[in-house]
Amino acid sequence: MRSVDDVYEAIENMTVRGAPLIGAAGAFGLYLATLEITSQTNIREHLSNAARYLISCRPTAVNLSWAVNYALEKLNRDHSPASLSGTALDAALEICEMEKEYCRQIGNHGLKLIESLSEKKGGAPLNILTHCNAGWLATIDYGTVTAPIYLAHDKGIPLHIWVDETRPRNQGAKLTAWELGEYGVPHTLIPDNTGGHLMQQKMVDVVFIGSDRTTGSGDVANKIGTYLKGLAAFDNNVPFYALFPSTSIDFSIRDGISEIAIEERDPEEVTTISGFANGIIESVRICPENTAAANYGFDITPARLITGLITERGICKATEKEIKKMFSDKFK
Amino acid sequence: MRSVDDVYEAIENMTVRGAPLIGAAGAFGLYLATLEITSQTNIREHLSNAARYLISCRPTAVNLSWAVNYALEKLNRDHSPASLSGTALDAALEICEMEKEYCRQIGNHGLKLIESLSEKKGGAPLNILTHCNAGWLATIDYGTVTAPIYLAHDKGIPLHIWVDETRPRNQGAKLTAWELGEYGVPHTLIPDNTGGHLMQQKMVDVVFIGSDRTTGSGDVANKIGTYLKGLAAFDNNVPFYALFPSTSIDFSIRDGISEIAIEERDPEEVTTISGFANGIIESVRICPENTAAANYGFDITPARLITGLITERGICKATEKEIKKMFSDKFK
Repeated sequence: MRSVDDVYEAIENMTVRGAPLIGAAGAFGLYLATLEITSQTNIREHLSNAARYLISCRPTAVNLSWAVNYALEKLNRDHSPASLSGTALDAALEICEMEKEYCRQIGNHGLKLIESLSEKKGGAPLNILTHCNAGWLATIDYGTVTAPIYLAHDKGIPLHIWVDETRPRNQGAKLTAWELGEYGVPHTLIPDNTGGHLMQQKMVDVVFIGSDRTTGSGDVANKIGTYLKGLAAFDNNVPFYALFPSTSIDFSIRDGISEIAIEERDPEEVTTISGFANGIIESVRICPENTAAANYGFDITPARLITGLITERGICKATEKEIKKMFSDKFK
Repeated sequence: MRSVDDVYEAIENMTVRGAPLIGAAGAFGLYLATLEITSQTNIREHLSNAARYLISCRPTAVNLSWAVNYALEKLNRDHSPASLSGTALDAALEICEMEKEYCRQIGNHGLKLIESLSEKKGGAPLNILTHCNAGWLATIDYGTVTAPIYLAHDKGIPLHIWVDETRPRNQGAKLTAWELGEYGVPHTLIPDNTGGHLMQQKMVDVVFIGSDRTTGSGDVANKIGTYLKGLAAFDNNVPFYALFPSTSIDFSIRDGISEIAIEERDPEEVTTISGFANGIIESVRICPENTAAANYGFDITPARLITGLITERGICKATEKEIKKMFSDKFK
């Protein structure tokens, strides 16, 4: 990516995706904006326009606006044009290190939970269901959902992951299945329709999902379909955890359903699917020509369905009171 | 289809699918079995073996065993070898007429419901969400879910149908979208993940689904993923109706989750998707090579989540008491 436009396009078409990763990419976008500055540039206007443009790219994940604004604030405090690029690059790299460290901590806290759930299984694999991809491909490194999974696997705790394919973009089938396969973690790919049946039949011990934006009251916006798994988990007494860094929390809002903008994407992502055919990537249309389709990117899992939130600071209940206690310094 | 094996294969690979239609196809299979009778054949053994074989083909829909056993009983009462084929053909045709008439009646009862729901919309289209295909492609004619939709559309009642694509076999994208398109009913294709969000945003007025087997207590086995929509409908106070002929009711069982066998199918139906590419049907693999997948065909929507059952006899609540009242002659 060599320009702000490149970054916008990469985030928009999901070449770069995952809440923490698009945040970091947005900050690098602002660095690239500093490289476009000439002696003619109105610097403050140029940078704030670039920031606004980058943030507008994908509306749901709060990390994007958080990271871009974080970098912009650093730039606004830097009054020497010669050092702007260095300041922006430092900010982007700092965000990367911060997100990696957050994921590492999420891994440590989640590992303790996995250990305690695994103990009850008497040696049988712990069945974890996940939706979308909240692995290192979404987060710089470690992942959120995958961080404790990798740590538990390294410790020899027997695990088996149910991987939702995650239509329409199939991040589960394409990314999570690949990540887990590379790491050697046993897993099974399932259609998104399957989780309810598995929970009815007691074949899921715990659900781990990521988050694109979590309200100060614990409502979680995550990839479309997460809410349906939250309902099924609640109905079958299966513990349901959201794992994310505090950079995914929007401390300024309380009601996910009315306050979080849900991105609508190109209907063609629904009407066509790409995959491998004879060694190359091909695209097939799955419906009659001219069939209209709708493509909402996210949904809201209300706090009442969530057993707990796992962040870099530990595990807390999905309630305003508990989030306030854990993040008293950040709460608005 | 020219042999029992052809019928078995067509039902097994879902060339013929939909609970009422596989029932009728099974009865025709028994007719084809009578054509295989020679002077050497032990007739009773041959026919009961053929019946058992056909029924074993797909375990979840009760219509298959009901229709095959219905035809077999007629054959067992026919002691003249010369007329067996005529008896079997008559039985199969009788089942077709019966199923068509049942669907017609389901249409009439469902139409009244649509009319009353539509009145509350003040001229705006009534948004109906459906899963899988319960149209005439699944039922000889009219369909179950589609019967009232077609009648309402004919009467000029404004409708809009949300069509779940219904992974892994995409019966919604391939069949329901096609049926509705041919009939001119406005519809939008959505990933199966989407319904929860639509209901949260009050974009669904009613859910209509079919059934492969309904217990005497009102639990509904239907295409995998139906349960998740039942949960979302219940959580958002959206009325949720199952539409099916009484031939889909298994009056002998009460607990869907423990008593209905859920078919497991070839994992390749999950790992590959077929569709149109450059005018031909192509298949693409959506995940890394050698990724394991699971493919459960159905799930159970418990009666407690269901607003009502629409059968050829009318609309009743999904309770043992109401089903008993409506089907006192059939209840076991």
